[in-house]
Amino acid sequence: METAKEVGASALWAGFNVQMETSANVFREAASLATQIQGETIPTDKSDTLSMETTLRQPVGPILSIVPWNGTAVLAARAIAYPLVCGNTVVFKGSEFSPATHALITQCVQEAGLPAGVLNYLNSSPDRSPEIADALISAKEIRRINFTGSTRVGSIIAQKAAQHLKRCLLELGGKSPLIVLDDADIDAAVKAAVFGSFLFQGQICMETSTERLVVDEKIADEFVAQFAEKAKRLSAGDPCVTGDCIIGPMETVSPNSRERINGLFKDAIDKEPQLPAAAWPNVRSCRPRSWITSNPTCRSTMETRKPSGPITVVDSLQRETEGNSHCTTRSTP
Amino acid sequence: METAKEVGASALWAGFNVQMETSANVFREAASLATQIQGETIPTDKSDTLSMETTLRQPVGPILSIVPWNGTAVLAARAIAYPLVCGNTVVFKGSEFSPATHALITQCVQEAGLPAGVLNYLNSSPDRSPEIADALISAKEIRRINFTGSTRVGSIIAQKAAQHLKRCLLELGGKSPLIVLDDADIDAAVKAAVFGSFLFQGQICMETSTERLVVDEKIADEFVAQFAEKAKRLSAGDPCVTGDCIIGPMETVSPNSRERINGLFKDAIDKEPQLPAAAWPNVRSCRPRSWITSNPTCRSTMETRKPSGPITVVDSLQRETEGNSHCTTRSTP
Repeated sequence: METAKEVGASALWAGFNVQMETSANVFREAASLATQIQGETIPTDKSDTLSMETTLRQPVGPILSIVPWNGTAVLAARAIAYPLVCGNTVVFKGSEFSPATHALITQCVQEAGLPAGVLNYLNSSPDRSPEIADALISAKEIRRINFTGSTRVGSIIAQKAAQHLKRCLLELGGKSPLIVLDDADIDAAVKAAVFGSFLFQGQICMETSTERLVVDEKIADEFVAQFAEKAKRLSAGDPCVTGDCIIGPMETVSPNSRERINGLFKDAIDKEPQLPAAAWPNVRSCRPRSWITSNPTCRSTMETRKPSGPITVVDSLQRETEGNSHCTTRSTP
Repeated sequence: METAKEVGASALWAGFNVQMETSANVFREAASLATQIQGETIPTDKSDTLSMETTLRQPVGPILSIVPWNGTAVLAARAIAYPLVCGNTVVFKGSEFSPATHALITQCVQEAGLPAGVLNYLNSSPDRSPEIADALISAKEIRRINFTGSTRVGSIIAQKAAQHLKRCLLELGGKSPLIVLDDADIDAAVKAAVFGSFLFQGQICMETSTERLVVDEKIADEFVAQFAEKAKRLSAGDPCVTGDCIIGPMETVSPNSRERINGLFKDAIDKEPQLPAAAWPNVRSCRPRSWITSNPTCRSTMETRKPSGPITVVDSLQRETEGNSHCTTRSTP
């Protein structure tokens, strides 16, 4: 419920993520690494001596983990569990948009019995966040940086880390395509596509999410029709009131989400006026729902930017002539 | 001879490095990787299905390799061979201080039969180098950056790469210590220490080089006396005339080397007036030779900056009480 209030997560998304089921598994899986952290014995080219090169993997010290609000619990669990299991301490900078959820996760982990100082939680108002991240990255005590979030901010974090020659591990936005070939089980493909496109309002970028659907042109019309029909039936609501809605609000975190998503959509239509839109209900409503476009050209911003919302591009392709090139675009910073 | 002229390499260093013996072995070893580039089959937690995750390692495209003048041939070989063996093409930016040597290496590799465009060489005057590196890192065609050089420039390269979210592989300056315990064979240790400290005027940072000697106090006096004696006998000269000299000139590449090294030395003496200097011949000569200091304190710049010259710090330590802490300082950007 905390997470429904903070980030508009429906019961479906909370069930996958926030209620600690998946997150607890992350800790269990991470724990299994503890005895698997191996160094190496490396051969040398001095065959006539007993010389030997040996590497050891050792903890480096405090890790700064910065996580977003969208995979609220599971991304926090990952950013905490793995550094700890490898013997480091963690400075966990929670998202400004889900401070209560991230504080709760910290509390759960600390109550499991960590010594003082091993897991350190902090949060801030959104306007002070860049300044605080900067100070932490610059601090000589921080040895590595782990960031999950937008491509734009990831590039800034990486630049600051590079200034101090600190390694960073980034998980940024993607444009992950779902490819549907002409021999696919269309029902199953539509089901997976709807799930991947609209889970948590399309605001995630994990293995279950998809930003683009690339469909063989032989089945594209049939696929798009079924996809639109299913998408239109997704229930929208306020998860604090109706937890079983599928599409929750986006304005909880980003008040300008509606304008941004409508802007992307309008941009696509402006550039490709004959764009066959299978369904675009509620474009002007307060709460965006599911929209589908097919065949916007590369001129459209929507095709290269991660929309982070309930909007999906369908490309149909001629399998023989176009190959994989449709699937290689990536999110731009 | 080209390399003696360009970077002041003696026959000893050239023999190890520049005459393509070591470099040819780098290509042979890299070639053996070609059939060892493996993806992975990753287990999933869906035990009741046939689902499977498979990763493939694929070439990414053009790699920018920027190399320094100090490991003239061997560092160039490494920066060319490994990306090529992994199926990429290489834009090889040679050092401004060894353009002829780097052009020669490129020519050798190209004559081995590479198709056009696979290995691309460029060089420039020193003043245009930052601008050219910047343009190359920004170019969308360049996918990865490989840089060997100073810590300071490495940080700049990493920041530019981060701006475009391009991965880079950096090998920068170190403060690699040679540790001599009280049961060491002192003759052998002195021999290794002199080799590691003064090969190519101490301007390298490879496994054979050492920036600091950490010696157990029980044998420190004896070690320093022998080290100083051996160091004083190293012959200095111009390798274009006397190829068998050990210490060549540094001014070929950096006209201000003498002032810089003398400054580091003076700084150490100023901060620690009672510094027992075992040998510092020719401080004011045109051509610096071998200097040794023992026990400068942490206040001294020389202890944390990579000197890139024939100057070496000897720390004596009490093994039981001080442990490894002496060996963990690193080069600062």
